[in-house]
Amino acid sequence: MYEKLTETYQSELSHSGVDGSRLANRLHELSQIGCTDEGGSYRISFSKEEQQAKDLVKKWMEEAGLKVSQDGAGNVIGRLEGTSSSAVIMSGSHVDSVPNGGHFDGPLGVLSALEVAQAWKDTGYKPEKSYEVVVFTDEEGARFESGLTGSQAMTGAFNESKKKTLTDSDGRSFEDILAENGLSFATIKEAKRDFSSIEAFVEVHIEQGKRLEKENLPVGVVQGIAGPSWVDIRFKGAAGHAGNTPMDDRQDALIATGRFIAEVEKLPPKISPSAVATVGKLHVKPNGINVIPGEVQLTVDIRDIHEDTRDQLREEVFSKAKQIASERHLEVEVKEIMSTPPVKVNDTMQQKAARAMKDTLHTEPYFLPSGAGHDAMVIGEKTEIAMLFTRSKDGISHNPAEWSSLNDCVQTVHVLKKLLEDLCSPS
Amino acid sequence: MYEKLTETYQSELSHSGVDGSRLANRLHELSQIGCTDEGGSYRISFSKEEQQAKDLVKKWMEEAGLKVSQDGAGNVIGRLEGTSSSAVIMSGSHVDSVPNGGHFDGPLGVLSALEVAQAWKDTGYKPEKSYEVVVFTDEEGARFESGLTGSQAMTGAFNESKKKTLTDSDGRSFEDILAENGLSFATIKEAKRDFSSIEAFVEVHIEQGKRLEKENLPVGVVQGIAGPSWVDIRFKGAAGHAGNTPMDDRQDALIATGRFIAEVEKLPPKISPSAVATVGKLHVKPNGINVIPGEVQLTVDIRDIHEDTRDQLREEVFSKAKQIASERHLEVEVKEIMSTPPVKVNDTMQQKAARAMKDTLHTEPYFLPSGAGHDAMVIGEKTEIAMLFTRSKDGISHNPAEWSSLNDCVQTVHVLKKLLEDLCSPS
Repeated sequence: MYEKLTETYQSELSHSGVDGSRLANRLHELSQIGCTDEGGSYRISFSKEEQQAKDLVKKWMEEAGLKVSQDGAGNVIGRLEGTSSSAVIMSGSHVDSVPNGGHFDGPLGVLSALEVAQAWKDTGYKPEKSYEVVVFTDEEGARFESGLTGSQAMTGAFNESKKKTLTDSDGRSFEDILAENGLSFATIKEAKRDFSSIEAFVEVHIEQGKRLEKENLPVGVVQGIAGPSWVDIRFKGAAGHAGNTPMDDRQDALIATGRFIAEVEKLPPKISPSAVATVGKLHVKPNGINVIPGEVQLTVDIRDIHEDTRDQLREEVFSKAKQIASERHLEVEVKEIMSTPPVKVNDTMQQKAARAMKDTLHTEPYFLPSGAGHDAMVIGEKTEIAMLFTRSKDGISHNPAEWSSLNDCVQTVHVLKKLLEDLCSPS
Repeated sequence: MYEKLTETYQSELSHSGVDGSRLANRLHELSQIGCTDEGGSYRISFSKEEQQAKDLVKKWMEEAGLKVSQDGAGNVIGRLEGTSSSAVIMSGSHVDSVPNGGHFDGPLGVLSALEVAQAWKDTGYKPEKSYEVVVFTDEEGARFESGLTGSQAMTGAFNESKKKTLTDSDGRSFEDILAENGLSFATIKEAKRDFSSIEAFVEVHIEQGKRLEKENLPVGVVQGIAGPSWVDIRFKGAAGHAGNTPMDDRQDALIATGRFIAEVEKLPPKISPSAVATVGKLHVKPNGINVIPGEVQLTVDIRDIHEDTRDQLREEVFSKAKQIASERHLEVEVKEIMSTPPVKVNDTMQQKAARAMKDTLHTEPYFLPSGAGHDAMVIGEKTEIAMLFTRSKDGISHNPAEWSSLNDCVQTVHVLKKLLEDLCSPS
């Protein structure tokens, strides 16, 4: 991976202490931990690979002059004391991955934050506020299908009673796996931080979409993190013989579903330019070649960065389902099965990030929503956040083919460095 | 079941040798063989229950004065020699069922044919042509998902090489199961009949639909048996993150599918009043709540009683899939995976059946298509056929709730008797 990263690297991007070769080398070294046969990353949360990756980052933190600790949730924190303020500015992300995922989702955020600390050390820059580089535990949640563990522990949003009900694919409990990592529900409680002195958190992440690629930009400013509302919809008609039931005497649940899906696509643009709605999962009953479908169950994933428009969209989706069911004399059941509130990045933070982008890249800043959740979404409930997205090749993520060029990564580090220097100075 | 059948029976329908109580009793006795906890029928082909049912019918055949034999495919034949002709008229159906099926699909056709023989015996009527009551083996094909075994053996359409590839859910081969029943591929070959002397076959069957119920008629004349064309269609788009992909930058295979399903419904009435098309089976890949569907595979069951209109409908279905895929910049693959030619009942036979219905019930004859396949479809490749449908309560079939009233059953027997007396007389 090192060769592929540096092959087309424009070395003039290495300046002001930021070193593209070092970043490439570290991305490469991390990628070797849990590397799959297909060249992907297999660093499931709470695995020895996740800890090995954290230990490697700890070593680099020390090289960058940071004081390293690991909290009761396994979060790794590298701290640089500020020169004249007790306030703290944080940056970081995670090093766990989904099964056979990519090498940028998480690591780029951690290594960008680290590269800034290293650049400061190498150039002798001393921030007035304290600076912390953080590696959050179990962001992806691949093991228990429930992530954001480290950031939730830090804010106190960790839901112990819910996590107690979880088991992994081997049937082992969350508590067992914590113990295996020298942790417990008690130590997780200790990881909770007092956010009164933590002024801001900045997360660099790959876009996992194609907006920046289309705009031909290496980096963009996140406006907000869309919180998903997941809804379950069941159309209920009547199964029947596909040969013996005339077309005008059917209660076909799948035809209603087909019309519904075609209509759902039209709803988001009517409500908000950043809203999306996706029918991703669908089951037909009885699902026989020669049987009229009696029931269809489907899910709709509804997102926007504004809670009000997202909830409005959900109501429109429900209305459309009811309208179509009524027109076709079917029954329909609609219910929300999960809802996470969107987190908006406040305008001041967006403007600071935009100015850092403009000053660094000499291009107009570009704003985009984050459709996926991130640790910044959790931290955003307690303090100011900003996010920078790095261009993703073909928008591919959670896949061995996930890729961001080293040029784009280094440009992102420069923007991050500028933004952190702004945030670390007295306001 | 006997009580439920006779409870509302109008006993004046028992005349001319036809006895409703006897028919009810025999339907009841057959229903006890393989009766499930839910009151359904579990007489899978080649089971001991199927043979037990055949043995019971053999006993009744003897009571009706028929000469009983069982051929090399396990078909049971009860023969009444004609008084002055070597020609043969046949009637019958099957006694095997789908798992937890109903008590009328099959048995009513066998017992109606038998009731006519019994009525002739009781009234001293002697047909000029020979009359055979037939119980075909394995019509439903529930064991190997491949039915019509007995009728195909009789016509010579039995496909030995295909059947050799089949295994049941216990992994046992067709050949093993034949051997268990004292049969073999060699004995099946011996079951082939010379159809030059078999002038006609008449099958009584429940409608398995709601047309007669809507028309308020006990019985109807079948115009033809729709042959299904099964097609497989795959829409291929691109999977992607449901949150990070804007609505206008998606290649969602399920939205194309939704539009396609909504359009398929509109096609049959444009082509033929008896045509139907059903999307019954559908699989979404990867089928995740937060993933844009990258591929959808679905089947369409297309039927008509006329081969030309059915094939025209199939081409329209293919065109619609290609048109929608093209509009949405997706790939699509279409292919026919199975095709059985429809069998039209010739006009003379339809008219004979219609006259029998008119003369017996004093109502205008009603014609309807058969959407499902039957043994008559196979026999129809070798000789003239007619089919009479008996009204089905709520159109329900292949289900313990399958029901036809005894009044309707007995009226069907009268129509069948009239038709057979016509066919058994010299033309």
